[in-house]
Amino acid sequence: MKEQLTFRMAAKKDLDPIVAMLADDALGKGRERYILPLPESYGQAFRAIDSDPNNELIVACCEAEVIGVMQLTFTPYLTHQGSWRATIEGVRTSSSVRGQGVGTRMIEWAIDRSRERGCSLVQLTTDKQRPEALRFYQKLGFSATHEGMKLKL
Amino acid sequence: MKEQLTFRMAAKKDLDPIVAMLADDALGKGRERYILPLPESYGQAFRAIDSDPNNELIVACCEAEVIGVMQLTFTPYLTHQGSWRATIEGVRTSSSVRGQGVGTRMIEWAIDRSRERGCSLVQLTTDKQRPEALRFYQKLGFSATHEGMKLKL
Repeated sequence: MKEQLTFRMAAKKDLDPIVAMLADDALGKGRERYILPLPESYGQAFRAIDSDPNNELIVACCEAEVIGVMQLTFTPYLTHQGSWRATIEGVRTSSSVRGQGVGTRMIEWAIDRSRERGCSLVQLTTDKQRPEALRFYQKLGFSATHEGMKLKL
Repeated sequence: MKEQLTFRMAAKKDLDPIVAMLADDALGKGRERYILPLPESYGQAFRAIDSDPNNELIVACCEAEVIGVMQLTFTPYLTHQGSWRATIEGVRTSSSVRGQGVGTRMIEWAIDRSRERGCSLVQLTTDKQRPEALRFYQKLGFSATHEGMKLKL
């Protein structure tokens, strides 16, 4: 499985399987809305991401099938003497391939891509309700040095 | 002090006092380089931020003096049925005004601006070496629901 993975920018036609993955998740099922055709808000968000050169929606594919998704955001900051950092968000894999190393390959790909974009730091936040995700990212070299704080508007 | 605060987008001429604030900080002093003229990397980062409509470098001013800085990043996501979120980063106030409520006014302003930009969530990460910052953000309504993970490249 891991050996056959390919990565590319998501296209509009990938939205259905992407949203299916976002909704097929312990936390996602309560907040996403996977009905076909998809609610128009997903299409709007896709167009905003797709037209922003500092945002990349990436899909992992096995042959033609989309089996993973993540969003990378590249941000210039003044801190650290002026530097770019990458943020990884919305990482999901298809439940049919879990435990086969697809997530690891995705994050490794994201780290390589962040280097290619000239970033000096890669960051992400992971919900404290997902202790297995914390260990997953630690194994990949991430340190939980920060509190990730959220405020819903 | 709090009553006289004004907020605006940072201009190139504000870079010297901004970097002075970034460097005058327990964690920042080890990683910033405040010499005049400033290292060119700060100017490059400023131009990248300034030319990106989804990034806003905001200064808080008391009369003509810059006494606070923060960066807001607005990002479209597919998650939460397609939504925008705001990230606050690099929040600093001048040491001459600490404890006078300037930081609180800045974050309140950032929350208002995030609403204006149509965001449904405001997020930030705060270093676990700054326990007083955690309490500060909790008082403003933020919850530490996530681990903030970083990987230096």
